[in-house]
Amino acid sequence: MSSIASTRHDRPATRKPLMSHTPAAVGMHLSAVDTPALLVDLDAFEANLRQMQQAIAGFGAQLRAHAKTHKCPTIALAQIAHGAVGVCCQKVSEAEALVDGGVEDVLISNEVVGPTKVARVAALAQRSKLSICVDDEQQITALADAMSAAGNGTLDVLVEIDVGAKRCGVQPGAEAVRLAELISVQPQLRFAGLQAYHGSAQHVRSLDERRAVIAKAAELAAFTRDCLQAAGIECPKITGAGTGTFLFEAGSSVYNELQAGSYVFMDADYGANEWSDSSFPRFKNSLFVWTTVMSRVPGVRAVVDAGLKSSSVDSGLPLLAEQTSAVYSNISDEHGVIQLNGARDYELGEKLKLIPGHCDPTVNMHDQLICYRGDRVEAIWPVTARGCAW
Amino acid sequence: MSSIASTRHDRPATRKPLMSHTPAAVGMHLSAVDTPALLVDLDAFEANLRQMQQAIAGFGAQLRAHAKTHKCPTIALAQIAHGAVGVCCQKVSEAEALVDGGVEDVLISNEVVGPTKVARVAALAQRSKLSICVDDEQQITALADAMSAAGNGTLDVLVEIDVGAKRCGVQPGAEAVRLAELISVQPQLRFAGLQAYHGSAQHVRSLDERRAVIAKAAELAAFTRDCLQAAGIECPKITGAGTGTFLFEAGSSVYNELQAGSYVFMDADYGANEWSDSSFPRFKNSLFVWTTVMSRVPGVRAVVDAGLKSSSVDSGLPLLAEQTSAVYSNISDEHGVIQLNGARDYELGEKLKLIPGHCDPTVNMHDQLICYRGDRVEAIWPVTARGCAW
Repeated sequence: MSSIASTRHDRPATRKPLMSHTPAAVGMHLSAVDTPALLVDLDAFEANLRQMQQAIAGFGAQLRAHAKTHKCPTIALAQIAHGAVGVCCQKVSEAEALVDGGVEDVLISNEVVGPTKVARVAALAQRSKLSICVDDEQQITALADAMSAAGNGTLDVLVEIDVGAKRCGVQPGAEAVRLAELISVQPQLRFAGLQAYHGSAQHVRSLDERRAVIAKAAELAAFTRDCLQAAGIECPKITGAGTGTFLFEAGSSVYNELQAGSYVFMDADYGANEWSDSSFPRFKNSLFVWTTVMSRVPGVRAVVDAGLKSSSVDSGLPLLAEQTSAVYSNISDEHGVIQLNGARDYELGEKLKLIPGHCDPTVNMHDQLICYRGDRVEAIWPVTARGCAW
Repeated sequence: MSSIASTRHDRPATRKPLMSHTPAAVGMHLSAVDTPALLVDLDAFEANLRQMQQAIAGFGAQLRAHAKTHKCPTIALAQIAHGAVGVCCQKVSEAEALVDGGVEDVLISNEVVGPTKVARVAALAQRSKLSICVDDEQQITALADAMSAAGNGTLDVLVEIDVGAKRCGVQPGAEAVRLAELISVQPQLRFAGLQAYHGSAQHVRSLDERRAVIAKAAELAAFTRDCLQAAGIECPKITGAGTGTFLFEAGSSVYNELQAGSYVFMDADYGANEWSDSSFPRFKNSLFVWTTVMSRVPGVRAVVDAGLKSSSVDSGLPLLAEQTSAVYSNISDEHGVIQLNGARDYELGEKLKLIPGHCDPTVNMHDQLICYRGDRVEAIWPVTARGCAW
């Protein structure tokens, strides 16, 4: 059987032209949009863009919106048009898709390791305002060498510090200073500041606990900035924050950039955070999985056509968007079971909106965002960086 | 801001040609394959194909391999070359991709609702041996009308019965007979038998419990077949089963077709099932997420570049493929944290294999399967039906 791979590989991939299919067309009534599809309510989405800018307007920090949420240059450009200084993303391939889509200023808010990727970073830096994070001296050397090989220009490099999330980043203080010094002696690199993001803080439910976690993160970032200053190194910026905490970083007088991303869409997980009695804006759910009832047991349950391949469940099952006692209670690859719990029966073929548990990995399952206003499709935006995990 | 959608939609989507990137090339050493990537160990994969056919050879049931696992016509054709009677899948768009890829005989093992999809079923039935499931008379009428509109030919239609999974399907017995009668009176449709799949049984950990659940499912299927016979309706076949239970269905003398799919790849969830003291073959893990260490704290942890957008966690976190005390213990969008627990330090840039928690939704995140033998890439198979959720 050693011949499977080569035999099948030689075979023509198709015998008939592939049938292409898009679930919607501009102008179409929402009810005609095929399912499963990922919908964006443009009124809610645009309100979220405005609310974010209004919320941070009184502070000295600028929005650097996180594009890992949407992976869509169209949305990145809308965020910049609303006042964001640029965007950030997690992967080189995402940065390429964003630059190719017209975004000028991209921070890869992550470490990048491996010669293929580092060479691509250097190539991309030739045609965009690119910055990147490091937490090891090997990364610094690799970036400097790749920039030399790629041509002219300097790359902005930030040192990531671990402000409590226990993921990437060096310890605040001396080790960060050491890396900043190593960056500064490379003529192809420029020390651009500190990445001080606390990811796990974003979904701490209690607002007071989130405030306390970010107060500590800001303290560690300020300490590192002061250590840099004592070593004669200017720290041009401190960047971090997410949708769950951005007002705390904004109010810290430490952070200059805020990396919130999920605020454009929201999701069930962010919806479960405590927001009450705070000045955080109430962002709206603008992202929905559109699904069809394809089987039912009247009085008991309905089964919809959106399962694990349409909505990520890492942060919980999707919620029904409508107010109802029915609950999306069980998921499999291509099915969702809705227990009615006394709610009305759904019709076979009826279409429903689901609020995904976690917006970022849900968007990454879909090729297109079907954008609607009222009950009409107004635009279809490709998720250009879908699957860009490199 | 109501102009965002139209303004951005009018803008050219790209200002520079998109950079394309594939993580591997045929002949490349595995160590050079970029990450994250989805690897298939061809030796293990081919052993799984052989072991499945050997395991069911003594029974009167044929394999109808489930293509929702791999979404790849190349693999479907390999399964058929090894003896499978055809494949099944869950969605119309998957069936189209499989037929376009050269697969002749496809069962959509699911209900399909909505005029767009039903018209596509009828169109696909004109150029393949297609069959489909129903559990409501409205579906039967819609399929019959669509077949009339599409042209000649008859569509094979199975009635799905709920054998205990409480998802789709009518109750065994009289209601199934009623639907079979409704199919039989439609000249464009042919009653082709019963779909009697018990999905939730596949991951019951205890082998004895799985045996008991399937014994009950087979009893309900046999009862329904007898009811059909009493009503003068022949039941051409009974189809169902999965990787966790297929030998029980095969040995039941009730099932004619076995819909196992995950056996080609296996995953951490199937690996956690009890298989001991049974005649079930020990399928090998052939599917791995290839990932790079991109940050580390020596003696404590390593952080890899494969997170929620590279490996599905609905059935648990990925496992490290190598034997080690280290554990992949925390996941976020683009990161996985490996706690060393006393294991050796990983090098920055070191590449590791992860066993995904659940193979099907993991494959659906990737565009390609990087197939290797030993330490060389032998083939790259497109996941043609990735994202085909319609």
